[in-house]
Amino acid sequence: VPISTLTPCFSCAVNRHISSPRSMPFFSDFCLAAVYVSDAQFNRNIFFDTSPQAVSLYLLYNHWAMQMIVYVFIFVDLALALFEDPAVIPMPIWGTSLVEMICLIVFTARLFHYAKVIPRIRFWKDPKNICIIVIILLSLIDIIIYGSLKSTGYNAVRWSRVLRPLLLVNVTEGRQLRRAFRSIRNALPQILYVFFLFMFSMLLFSLMALKLFGKRNLFTVDGEPYFTNFLDIVFDLYVLVTTANSPDVMMPAYNYNSFFALFFILYILINTYIFMSVFLAVVYNNYKKHLKEEVRQLVKSKRQKMLRAFAVLQQPGSGEELVVSQENWNQLVHLVQPDISNAHRELLWSISDDCNKSHIGKLAFVQLPDLLNIQVITMKSRPHPLHIWFPLLYDSSVSRLLRHAVKHKAFVYIYDLIILVNAIFIGLDEENPLIAYAEWAFLALYLLEILLKLYTWEPRAFFAKHQFWNCRQILDIVLILRVLRLIRVVDSIKRFRTIINTLIKIGPTILTFGQLILVVYYIFAMVGMELFKEKVKYLEADSTDPYKDSCGTPLLRGTTFAKNNYCKNNFNNVVSSFILLLELTVVNQWHDILSASAVSHVSARLFFVFFHIVVVIIIINIFVAFILEAFFVEYTVEKSDLQTSLEKKIEELELSVDKYVAQQSVHGFKAVWLYNNLFHLFFSGYKTVDGLLQRMFEADLSLEDADDMDDPNFSNITFDSV
Amino acid sequence: VPISTLTPCFSCAVNRHISSPRSMPFFSDFCLAAVYVSDAQFNRNIFFDTSPQAVSLYLLYNHWAMQMIVYVFIFVDLALALFEDPAVIPMPIWGTSLVEMICLIVFTARLFHYAKVIPRIRFWKDPKNICIIVIILLSLIDIIIYGSLKSTGYNAVRWSRVLRPLLLVNVTEGRQLRRAFRSIRNALPQILYVFFLFMFSMLLFSLMALKLFGKRNLFTVDGEPYFTNFLDIVFDLYVLVTTANSPDVMMPAYNYNSFFALFFILYILINTYIFMSVFLAVVYNNYKKHLKEEVRQLVKSKRQKMLRAFAVLQQPGSGEELVVSQENWNQLVHLVQPDISNAHRELLWSISDDCNKSHIGKLAFVQLPDLLNIQVITMKSRPHPLHIWFPLLYDSSVSRLLRHAVKHKAFVYIYDLIILVNAIFIGLDEENPLIAYAEWAFLALYLLEILLKLYTWEPRAFFAKHQFWNCRQILDIVLILRVLRLIRVVDSIKRFRTIINTLIKIGPTILTFGQLILVVYYIFAMVGMELFKEKVKYLEADSTDPYKDSCGTPLLRGTTFAKNNYCKNNFNNVVSSFILLLELTVVNQWHDILSASAVSHVSARLFFVFFHIVVVIIIINIFVAFILEAFFVEYTVEKSDLQTSLEKKIEELELSVDKYVAQQSVHGFKAVWLYNNLFHLFFSGYKTVDGLLQRMFEADLSLEDADDMDDPNFSNITFDSV
Repeated sequence: VPISTLTPCFSCAVNRHISSPRSMPFFSDFCLAAVYVSDAQFNRNIFFDTSPQAVSLYLLYNHWAMQMIVYVFIFVDLALALFEDPAVIPMPIWGTSLVEMICLIVFTARLFHYAKVIPRIRFWKDPKNICIIVIILLSLIDIIIYGSLKSTGYNAVRWSRVLRPLLLVNVTEGRQLRRAFRSIRNALPQILYVFFLFMFSMLLFSLMALKLFGKRNLFTVDGEPYFTNFLDIVFDLYVLVTTANSPDVMMPAYNYNSFFALFFILYILINTYIFMSVFLAVVYNNYKKHLKEEVRQLVKSKRQKMLRAFAVLQQPGSGEELVVSQENWNQLVHLVQPDISNAHRELLWSISDDCNKSHIGKLAFVQLPDLLNIQVITMKSRPHPLHIWFPLLYDSSVSRLLRHAVKHKAFVYIYDLIILVNAIFIGLDEENPLIAYAEWAFLALYLLEILLKLYTWEPRAFFAKHQFWNCRQILDIVLILRVLRLIRVVDSIKRFRTIINTLIKIGPTILTFGQLILVVYYIFAMVGMELFKEKVKYLEADSTDPYKDSCGTPLLRGTTFAKNNYCKNNFNNVVSSFILLLELTVVNQWHDILSASAVSHVSARLFFVFFHIVVVIIIINIFVAFILEAFFVEYTVEKSDLQTSLEKKIEELELSVDKYVAQQSVHGFKAVWLYNNLFHLFFSGYKTVDGLLQRMFEADLSLEDADDMDDPNFSNITFDSV
Repeated sequence: VPISTLTPCFSCAVNRHISSPRSMPFFSDFCLAAVYVSDAQFNRNIFFDTSPQAVSLYLLYNHWAMQMIVYVFIFVDLALALFEDPAVIPMPIWGTSLVEMICLIVFTARLFHYAKVIPRIRFWKDPKNICIIVIILLSLIDIIIYGSLKSTGYNAVRWSRVLRPLLLVNVTEGRQLRRAFRSIRNALPQILYVFFLFMFSMLLFSLMALKLFGKRNLFTVDGEPYFTNFLDIVFDLYVLVTTANSPDVMMPAYNYNSFFALFFILYILINTYIFMSVFLAVVYNNYKKHLKEEVRQLVKSKRQKMLRAFAVLQQPGSGEELVVSQENWNQLVHLVQPDISNAHRELLWSISDDCNKSHIGKLAFVQLPDLLNIQVITMKSRPHPLHIWFPLLYDSSVSRLLRHAVKHKAFVYIYDLIILVNAIFIGLDEENPLIAYAEWAFLALYLLEILLKLYTWEPRAFFAKHQFWNCRQILDIVLILRVLRLIRVVDSIKRFRTIINTLIKIGPTILTFGQLILVVYYIFAMVGMELFKEKVKYLEADSTDPYKDSCGTPLLRGTTFAKNNYCKNNFNNVVSSFILLLELTVVNQWHDILSASAVSHVSARLFFVFFHIVVVIIIINIFVAFILEAFFVEYTVEKSDLQTSLEKKIEELELSVDKYVAQQSVHGFKAVWLYNNLFHLFFSGYKTVDGLLQRMFEADLSLEDADDMDDPNFSNITFDSV
């Protein structure tokens, strides 16, 4: 969630009439421009009122604390499933209802706030808002009905709980999630065509199977007739596509005659391998196509926001051109990002101001959010504090030898070796007191390493340089995660670092998929709990239930499910439901799990097949598609255009790229020695997920979008609704 | 396997001195040029001697019958595994040895032939030939050793059988297969890096699992201690990556404490989902990159061959330019493709000869193999034979009404409905005599349909127009495959047809993967049979073996393997080995299968893990990558450049594209009305797999390759060795 840092502007409304120099815009104008820039930077697409009052309300709306509150209450609302019947920790109905009411009030207040910020007509046109209002109203109705039914002793269903995860999708901040859902929705028609063909092929094979095996009087291991009922065959073959019942489903036919294996080989080739790959291809292709279109829209609306900001700050320049002066630009940047260092800001200005004219035109101004999104770490290059405090001691020959040793490659190798030995010790038996003592010795060695490094390098430089890899070094000390130290050994090999860094870059997007999965799992868990709760019971070893060995029900006696100790895989509370759904996502044994949960309730198969289609065929494939795309980008695109232009500018400014850190560029970092070693600037990739997406499609976007730069009649694009 | 059609040239060597007009090249020159063109057309890369004798030897070498003989004997050689111990059908050792000796003689003869065709120095430089020689020699040695050991009663191993599938790779015709292997070999380093990281992550998780669960005194369902031995944990977690033991491996920990599920969720996320996707990404990326390079080489060497052919036939043109006259070109095309129709050849000439000059230059000449590779069907548009024989009857109003009805859409819909009803009948019980009669009624209806269609359309036009879809109509009549009729219903929906056609286009390449899989399976089957034969026995129901229920061995009593009736999944002969390997490829239950085959032989795990890495991680991923790529090409590239230029030319020649068949273009066919409805030309995609590959990378290849056209110093590229 992007965090707004425009705190000084909260007083915009009050400061409107502060007098400013003649040619200068009002302070409130700066605020408005800064809001535009910040929106462009974080790709917010809210059409707010531009009156100073509305702007400061809008700022408050985007304040990180407000966003945090909304997410906390959504989290609380979702977490209520833990306490509601069937509960992990039971709570009285009035308690959960009260908490839910509070959540609903918060959501309503947030919505009121939003309504104040944007024009009324836009508020009612936005399906997101309608959606939230409907969810709130339905939840309210459900609470009342459920409460009154329960208090009068009737049975009731909390059906509105299914709607809760939709809040995550429809809050203003859920842009990434909405985009993911839109991509899925847009890919659906194509997926459906392939799915129909796939189903058709399955039905065809089922018919053939019925004709081939139905009359042969074969039996499965459990003694059931084999392949005699058409619908059962269809289901068995669907399960075979997921490979979950391979080779069991084949064995009776194969035992009867080896040639029958050919039928299953053909089936697996066509339906498991080819069709599943086609699904991936279709999902991938459509996902990419639609995402590209979305990113194009993002870039377009970003530019329009920047043009608006420019319109607010523009002043007549030397010719006919309208410009923004360096002074105004500085103030704007200071408002947008108060914590920016002077060196960093000067660098950005020198990049924007090509010709050293102390003012920039429209084209250069529009670049600002991209420049701000490049992560730059400013760091003063200064002598080691020990060097200042004890110059003689620190420069003594012993000290210099020590520092030289620490800087030597062998130092790294020795510690890699120590870590490996440590890992082996961890693998060994801990009962042995010698090994327990060794653990303390290793700890001491790691501490010594950090101290030696701090002695050799200037502390701030040391931490800034290693960034991610050093946080882990601190984690080393945490004993529970001590095996993670091994990552350091891998880190020292360049090739591995590239892969690991790509994985880390994908990280934030995986969180978006996490939300996506959460929404889908939550809905399925709610429905599943209503349908299947208490059908299967997990009983402790000391239970006296007569059906203890068959999960508390006589129906499961002697089934694979009971034999494999699967009793805890049930829908009896939200936690076990989630874990059960995860097992269904992994697919293996899902037919066993389902046959138990349903306890021979045949129609329940539909629930599970539907889950499989939604989660495995669609969402997991999109996830795979995203990872594929991210790796292709990593393997093909070396640097983004903007970063390259940044480097070009730096070279033009006669600054040299330092060699040591250029070697470090595998981290995605580059360092620049600015003004005779006074500052170091590291810049890594983009800060946001949108940045990564933009980078993915940069090559396709850059050309055509240059055209509509001069289009003055821009309109606000409303593509932010599902 | 491309089939040479240059039969008239076999007499080249004899006809050398036949006199020809002054400016005309010798007939043997035409032969040489035709061989070059044919080589370019089918991407053969053999540097043959250019003497007329060598050329006709070379022609013989490429003759389809010779190639067929080689493949038949390779097939016989591979099929020997069926008769050798452990045999499906046992044969005496002298019998199999004799057959193998005959095979080896054929391979040697083929190699001698090859040595006669190409210069000696090239023969010995080519690793393919060395490879075949080594295989032949080792096989010979093995036969002798094995025979003598067996005859003296010793135990012996037929180790050279592992080498047999390598013949498939190293014969001249195995280009596609060699290319696939080269792609794999080139992708290996990148795959290895990811694999090391993956192994590292697995070991890390194993260490954590040992620390988390080792001391808790947990037990698996079988009563074994849970997660106490490091190597067992590593293996269990490796199996979890393949999802085969999910959720079993988690259950003891999960039953102990629900929070432990988090460990497995994290593991599955990272290792099953992310790492497996990264494998796909890396395999895909590298495969594509190297394949592109190979195709670039193909295009280059194709052009060089055509330049050689041009050099043979060139004559001085009007200016300084060297040209080939239409007369010579016609003779060349006639030699290369004797069955080409005049209309087709004229069309190709009019495309090559831009300016109607009756001769073409180098640039246009080089296009020839691509033009020949475009599938063109020539078809005379003529009246229906019935119209000629019984004009009055055929033109009567009843007949016209009938023909109109058959052409109507409703006719198609009615028959779609009939097919659906038929499918339902098939699904119903056949015992019912009414349904058995109905089957005959349906058959009569299908026959009626074909007769009606033949009555309405001119028979030859009818069959040419429908091509593939009509072969199936004939299959309809074959009762066994009657359910395939349902495909016709799907065929009538355009969207489905696109997908089906893409799948059909991929077909030939899937055969290459089939060979790849065959080579790998064969090697693993041979090794597996030596290691595990007779460890598990499949006993018929009437067997008196005391261990009948546990696959003939007391070791398997009560195991999942025996309980699930898996006894037939063994390495006791080559057929069951192949099916077992297929089951291991599908992955599910593989740990059970393996534990049985090995019968607690722990080191055998390596065999299975290695198989998993080679087949599932590498080959299946390449297969998936290929399908992905083919679908992306289908979705993005609409037409190939060459086809477009063909169409452009046709338009220039003032020919109009017919509407009916333009609508049919979803099939990949296009039809042209040539010279006032006298001829129809249908052209579909390329005939060869190389054509498909070339089309895939066309966009990247076309630009840069235009540059080296005028390079006269071309050398033969030798990239055809593994």
